[in-house]
Amino acid sequence: MITTINITSLQNKYIKQVNLLKQKKERDKTKLFIAEGERLVNEIPQDWKIEYIILSENYLSDVNTQKICNILSKFPQIKAFTVSQKYFEKISDTVTPQGILAVCRQKIYNENKFINKKNPFFILLERISDPGNLGTLIRTADAAGADCVFLSKGCVDLYNSKVIRSSMGSIFHLPVVINSEFDVLIENLKSKNINILAAHLKGKKTLYDINLTNGIGILIGNEANGLSDEISEKSTELIKIPMPGNAESMNVSVAGSIFIYEAVRQRIK
Amino acid sequence: MITTINITSLQNKYIKQVNLLKQKKERDKTKLFIAEGERLVNEIPQDWKIEYIILSENYLSDVNTQKICNILSKFPQIKAFTVSQKYFEKISDTVTPQGILAVCRQKIYNENKFINKKNPFFILLERISDPGNLGTLIRTADAAGADCVFLSKGCVDLYNSKVIRSSMGSIFHLPVVINSEFDVLIENLKSKNINILAAHLKGKKTLYDINLTNGIGILIGNEANGLSDEISEKSTELIKIPMPGNAESMNVSVAGSIFIYEAVRQRIK
Repeated sequence: MITTINITSLQNKYIKQVNLLKQKKERDKTKLFIAEGERLVNEIPQDWKIEYIILSENYLSDVNTQKICNILSKFPQIKAFTVSQKYFEKISDTVTPQGILAVCRQKIYNENKFINKKNPFFILLERISDPGNLGTLIRTADAAGADCVFLSKGCVDLYNSKVIRSSMGSIFHLPVVINSEFDVLIENLKSKNINILAAHLKGKKTLYDINLTNGIGILIGNEANGLSDEISEKSTELIKIPMPGNAESMNVSVAGSIFIYEAVRQRIK
Repeated sequence: MITTINITSLQNKYIKQVNLLKQKKERDKTKLFIAEGERLVNEIPQDWKIEYIILSENYLSDVNTQKICNILSKFPQIKAFTVSQKYFEKISDTVTPQGILAVCRQKIYNENKFINKKNPFFILLERISDPGNLGTLIRTADAAGADCVFLSKGCVDLYNSKVIRSSMGSIFHLPVVINSEFDVLIENLKSKNINILAAHLKGKKTLYDINLTNGIGILIGNEANGLSDEISEKSTELIKIPMPGNAESMNVSVAGSIFIYEAVRQRIK
């Protein structure tokens, strides 16, 4: 049996909170974020802290009860609310809402915990501004088995709904450190013999000329402007992706993923 | 000196045509399409057939005259029209229009011309539905120096404005055959000893276990459903991308690009 509490007013405090959580300011203040959609909610691990779940009445009636029971049984103490389809559409951040969302607590990772890892595989993203690109890069890093993703100040908010969606749940699998001070981080990593390899059009060597099997941090910059000079100068080496064809650049999530996967190729051998 | 014709009515036939060209039906009928934005218009090669260019009055006054002269001098016979900023916003397909667009003729490539190429590097895209993914894959294929991209029936329209934009002009560099009958194409390619390698989660070998230096066609399927059974069965071999981490899948333009670039790595050696 599914026990839920029905909410019938848009003035209800949970409804109001979900609407407020669309703003970064509120997410920063409360350290909460929204995971919307069946697939994303399904990806939340059992040990992740969820505040509550909201279901639309249509979702509750349309789909297999078993599905909802499976989700709720992972989180036995969870508060589950139901709202009308109309209300769900008002709080949803998608064009065609599925009728399920979870309000989750952000996980705060301590940078120092990761940098002592032996032979690590890190991804450093500087000022990525498009949410789709950030989510896609986190998804690739997760597929690749990277140990941690570090985001510089100036990256789009990790908890932006489009980042969460395009990460396809990878945000729940893989540690992502936010607001990292890259000048400090890079010095720390280099002092532990971790090579910081900057994807850069001015690189002399290509990613196929270097050894990626030891401790590495792959450093990827902003869509329009690439890496800042300040940060690329701190890297161990600038590395280019060869472009034997006619295009002069690639999409940042593609370029980053090609680099990440060259490391996968070398490391799985 | 820049000679342009000023258009002052939304009923003008060119203005009406630009608005109609936002629809696939009209693009199919007229075999025209729109390239909007300074960067895209700049990428159009001199031998590409352009029907006319439309500039906003703001663009004409704001930017360096030299820039427009450079563009127009590539196409000496071109008709150039100016419209008010307000009108340009009405015909533009972007949120913040730059004030320049070109109406271009579609280039029709003959599939048979390409399949006889020696040791070719082909990309075959089946039913890609997201315009951003299609444009991004064409951009990667162009960077990689692929010989031709083939699109199956059921792919999003190549001349959709978002495909053109995310291709970043690569559509002007690299032949793209549309509406290809993949069952026939694949048989033809195989008869010429071109290996058709299907990116597939069920692949036994990984892309790092195979030789990509001979004639190849890399076959990539739809975002949500992957390749159709009918087409993947026709391929020479199913090939998977290893995912040592936790994600179960990757973005299709990322997965396709990783595959394309493994071929680049092997072929540039």
